[in-house]
Amino acid sequence: MIIDCHGHYTTEPKDLHRFRKEQTEAANAKDKSRMPPRSALKLPDDEIRESIENNQLRLQRERGTDLTIFSPRASGMGHHIGDESVSVEWSQICNDLIARVVSLYPKNFVGVCQLPQSPGVPPKNSAAELERCVKMGFVGCNLNPDPSGGYFNAPPMTDKWWYPLYEKMVELDVPCMIHVSGCCNPAQHTTGSYYLNADTMVFMQVILSDLFKDFPTLKFIIPHGGGAVPFHWGRFRGIALNNGRPELDQIMADNIFFDTCVYHQPGIDLLTSVVPADNILFASEMVGAVKGNDPKTGFGFDDTKRYIDKTRLSDADKAKIFEGNAYRVYPRLKAQIARQAA
Amino acid sequence: MIIDCHGHYTTEPKDLHRFRKEQTEAANAKDKSRMPPRSALKLPDDEIRESIENNQLRLQRERGTDLTIFSPRASGMGHHIGDESVSVEWSQICNDLIARVVSLYPKNFVGVCQLPQSPGVPPKNSAAELERCVKMGFVGCNLNPDPSGGYFNAPPMTDKWWYPLYEKMVELDVPCMIHVSGCCNPAQHTTGSYYLNADTMVFMQVILSDLFKDFPTLKFIIPHGGGAVPFHWGRFRGIALNNGRPELDQIMADNIFFDTCVYHQPGIDLLTSVVPADNILFASEMVGAVKGNDPKTGFGFDDTKRYIDKTRLSDADKAKIFEGNAYRVYPRLKAQIARQAA
Repeated sequence: MIIDCHGHYTTEPKDLHRFRKEQTEAANAKDKSRMPPRSALKLPDDEIRESIENNQLRLQRERGTDLTIFSPRASGMGHHIGDESVSVEWSQICNDLIARVVSLYPKNFVGVCQLPQSPGVPPKNSAAELERCVKMGFVGCNLNPDPSGGYFNAPPMTDKWWYPLYEKMVELDVPCMIHVSGCCNPAQHTTGSYYLNADTMVFMQVILSDLFKDFPTLKFIIPHGGGAVPFHWGRFRGIALNNGRPELDQIMADNIFFDTCVYHQPGIDLLTSVVPADNILFASEMVGAVKGNDPKTGFGFDDTKRYIDKTRLSDADKAKIFEGNAYRVYPRLKAQIARQAA
Repeated sequence: MIIDCHGHYTTEPKDLHRFRKEQTEAANAKDKSRMPPRSALKLPDDEIRESIENNQLRLQRERGTDLTIFSPRASGMGHHIGDESVSVEWSQICNDLIARVVSLYPKNFVGVCQLPQSPGVPPKNSAAELERCVKMGFVGCNLNPDPSGGYFNAPPMTDKWWYPLYEKMVELDVPCMIHVSGCCNPAQHTTGSYYLNADTMVFMQVILSDLFKDFPTLKFIIPHGGGAVPFHWGRFRGIALNNGRPELDQIMADNIFFDTCVYHQPGIDLLTSVVPADNILFASEMVGAVKGNDPKTGFGFDDTKRYIDKTRLSDADKAKIFEGNAYRVYPRLKAQIARQAA
């Protein structure tokens, strides 16, 4: 089985966008009376089916992958929009929609949730929604290190501010994917620089910290190939060693994992040559940041399975990346797959 | 001749640090009467000589490089400290110190200046210091895309806010190295994530813009190997193509250059395999971000010449990276080298 650990529902039914637009306008106007009612949302099964079958499911079949760990559109989380109550309402709606996709295609998708974070609001306030989603069968969450939407002004993820949420993650035995949302800072481009910068930032925060001594079973998936880290492996190794820390692979161990959302062969070759295969998870982020075919190869930029197939990794290492590691990183995954197959 | 385009004076005489500490304290206290007088600075030739000969000059000799394009300590620019007047005073002092190093070792160093930027202050206010330094023989400047020191809240570098400074750069025929300074944001680590994030951010800003149509001779050196860009070359290519832009090498052309401050062999191999050799400048950033030897190789992490020597590049391409490109990127360099040799 080939498990893609990073897919977002980026082809949502159109009424979801209508709702969010009205919700955003009401939030910006600070006028609660204009908030659209959740009950008026029109998200019929047929529209969900069409959106999935023509996109994610078609690509799974074409590319030969089997299962996508699926979460709401990352750029749509918009934690900087409105206040905590807006974020709670929006997160519940988006997560419920993922649950419906999973219930329609239980062999193709397993759910991961977004959290109702909001700038300045303690992360522990997201624990309830995480617990609700895990009860629905979700196996992880996306955790935003920058709810401001582009200004990186939250405490580092090693700060005790985040600890109550980590405690809940550990209790529920679910990992998080570190993932910012849409950028409202004109200096940073959402998918081009902001996503990668957040990945790099968080890796650097944790490698000089004792976070994983405090939470030995906590797991961070740092997506987009770990941001800039593999390319600058020597820089990060050197900084770690100069600070009395061990080698990066020892730091990553059972706690930090990179995905394979790197959209060209030399990048995947680098990733798989410096980062231990035990710490890499197959992912494509489809349908996501870079749509369309690479004119030089004729294949989708985000058809990352092809790049991994072409690496010099052993079959055993490829199997870890495509499947085996996912069961380590998402401890609830194997049972959930069995449950959904039944 | 092997030209290292990225060296900072990070071994400054100790009285410079005493001055800056007092200046910072006075600035933080908003008490101009406590500002230390420039005239009291003690920066004797002997101390400068010792600091250079035991460090940068020793490493040049050991590693077989000839000339370093040399600027003040990047993390020390501290544009977020104090107001514009503090930044002007500090920049003049730091740049004058570079001029003294160059005058003591005219065959080994050519100067690049820092600019008296300050949060919210128009970049055009830095034109005077740039002009003063070019008159002293400097061949370029370091331009900070984030004077806030870590919050990325300045207008993108494609914004017309920056244009008057670009006009001065074009008039003087000098490039800039995009370089942030020390980070005051606890979420970002100065040399580990902040530097790289700024590089990635600025590359993404410019590739979707018409900046180089407006300034066909303007040149940006994006250091640290271009941040995350080469590792994510497919992502950036795809985003550019999806936005109706040409291939990245056509965008970079005569305007965007990456340096070789990437501290391991696989990283340099990737850089040189995806980025045209015409757009790469040799650099080590020594004595800089990552000190000490890599225990796996026994050589300095930042001994980047060794990595380039070991690439599969042709001798002609290596010659471009080590020397030839520098004359294209720094149009005043060749004459300045001749002048200093005389």
